[in-house]
Amino acid sequence: MIIDVHGHYTTAPKALEAWRNRQIAGITNPAEMPKASELRISDEELRESIEGNQLRLMRERGLDLTIFSPRASFMAHHIGDFRVSSTWAAICNELCYRVSRLFPDQFIPAAMLPQSPGVDPATCIPELTRCVQEYGNVAINLNPDPSGGHWNSPPLSDPHWYPIYEKMVEYDIPAMIHVSTSCNPSFHTTGAHYLNADTTAFMQCLTSDLFKAFPRLRFVIPHGGGAVPYHWGRFRGLAQELKKPLLKDHLLHNVYFDTCVYHQPGIDLLTRVIPVDNILFASEMIGAVRGIDPETGHYYDDTRRYVEAARIEPEQRGRIFEGNARRVYPRLDAALKARGR
Amino acid sequence: MIIDVHGHYTTAPKALEAWRNRQIAGITNPAEMPKASELRISDEELRESIEGNQLRLMRERGLDLTIFSPRASFMAHHIGDFRVSSTWAAICNELCYRVSRLFPDQFIPAAMLPQSPGVDPATCIPELTRCVQEYGNVAINLNPDPSGGHWNSPPLSDPHWYPIYEKMVEYDIPAMIHVSTSCNPSFHTTGAHYLNADTTAFMQCLTSDLFKAFPRLRFVIPHGGGAVPYHWGRFRGLAQELKKPLLKDHLLHNVYFDTCVYHQPGIDLLTRVIPVDNILFASEMIGAVRGIDPETGHYYDDTRRYVEAARIEPEQRGRIFEGNARRVYPRLDAALKARGR
Repeated sequence: MIIDVHGHYTTAPKALEAWRNRQIAGITNPAEMPKASELRISDEELRESIEGNQLRLMRERGLDLTIFSPRASFMAHHIGDFRVSSTWAAICNELCYRVSRLFPDQFIPAAMLPQSPGVDPATCIPELTRCVQEYGNVAINLNPDPSGGHWNSPPLSDPHWYPIYEKMVEYDIPAMIHVSTSCNPSFHTTGAHYLNADTTAFMQCLTSDLFKAFPRLRFVIPHGGGAVPYHWGRFRGLAQELKKPLLKDHLLHNVYFDTCVYHQPGIDLLTRVIPVDNILFASEMIGAVRGIDPETGHYYDDTRRYVEAARIEPEQRGRIFEGNARRVYPRLDAALKARGR
Repeated sequence: MIIDVHGHYTTAPKALEAWRNRQIAGITNPAEMPKASELRISDEELRESIEGNQLRLMRERGLDLTIFSPRASFMAHHIGDFRVSSTWAAICNELCYRVSRLFPDQFIPAAMLPQSPGVDPATCIPELTRCVQEYGNVAINLNPDPSGGHWNSPPLSDPHWYPIYEKMVEYDIPAMIHVSTSCNPSFHTTGAHYLNADTTAFMQCLTSDLFKAFPRLRFVIPHGGGAVPYHWGRFRGLAQELKKPLLKDHLLHNVYFDTCVYHQPGIDLLTRVIPVDNILFASEMIGAVRGIDPETGHYYDDTRRYVEAARIEPEQRGRIFEGNARRVYPRLDAALKARGR
């Protein structure tokens, strides 16, 4: 089977965005703050928003299952305070959970966290717990920069983040390290901020001994690892300068890269440079790049085509498509096995 | 001949750093502020600092000429105010000029600018003018983030930067877009901030119509373009979403990538994805990654080896090594021709 580890609910019914806009207005004008219960989206609406979009493309592309989390750019942790983020995360996570109940064979949820700039990440634990225990989430998305492009949180290696890591280890779930919308005019959200965050997160791991402190902690770096595989020689050399172990020993028991790289040469480099066991199939469709590549006639984000064309053995391709995801997301594996898959 | 377009004076005599440390101390304690004239470095010291380092490696690697600018991480535009930066830039640029006079066949200078956070870039024009007219500089290094990792300057497409661009066009010189030390603990300087800046700068160009306003403006994006070539499909797709022309028309008359990518698969991707005319040979030695790659037994930053091994025609290799640099840096070409080269 083919598991896409990186899908966001980018096609949620418009009512969600309308509610969020009211919530944002309510920050400055509390009289306008809507209740969570005022958002009403029917199962029928959810079904429609998925069937014509993600599910249609999954069928066309032969993808079996998507790990499905709230829309990354809409997390916008920089907006409002913890209470605002908390209500918003609860709503978004519930919607992904409902999608996973409506399409239990095709979607399994991953949670966004109610992060807020300057707020102790421990405040995210109740939502994380609820999502894992009640909603069957198999992973979380962790935003290393809840400020949205100002980068004023401590690095991922800082004890600041440990409460999250402790819970991740307890539940044996990985985190995808994924920022949200940039509110810094220097950084285009999907063209700069996302890729920069991937590179930054990797380097924060490289310079630290985080995985000595948490040997079972697992991070998935999305978007093919940002700039990392392209500069793998640079990172190997920097680790050497810093007297760290070889990257395969220092980081590759804990760090994984997805295949959200939207052209053949990129996937060819990724599969040439990064050990197959550290590559997880993903497309992030319907996401940042929704068009058709005039050079190929196919969707840019139809990453299965690139992985199929990469010069790797069929058995290796199977690990990228399925085996690695089952290993890195044990709760996904357990959920699949419970259904005989 | 082989021209390395990206060399910094990373091996300057210790007296330079000592003077800078006194200058930094002088910011808080004006009584300690040294005069520029208190820095004394002899020609002999300059010669020594180059002969055993850059020049030795250039000879070993068969590189003929380096475009040589002040050490990037030492620019540290975030330290002090415009006056501090101005004195520091003048000192550093003079040293690179002196190196170019001591080794006129092997080094030609490029200037750092006395940028300072929140200060109008027009204040950099006198130093730029002096470097071009008196010192024979063939390019500048432009820092898109003089704050050192806080990214609070306007994007490169903003009229904020136009005074620099107007002078660049007047002198027909390119700018390498190169940040300096990160003082943001999120970003490792050479492992994250440099690469992020490359990606960010490219995306700032992509989202704008800067090169419509300045058709003759030329930017060199160092470090192989950050994450850009690896994600070329993503950037092509983003340009399409934004209704911009094809990247080759939108950006590739004005944007160039160097070859500071420290392993073979990276250079193979770069030469596969980016048109040869947009690739400039460079090594940035002796720089971020000074060690020997245990996988090859050669220096990571011996990028000539990778370019030699890339699957391109000899004529294309010649353009990467020399022809493109002569085209993108017309003052370099003129200086070489004046010497019959």
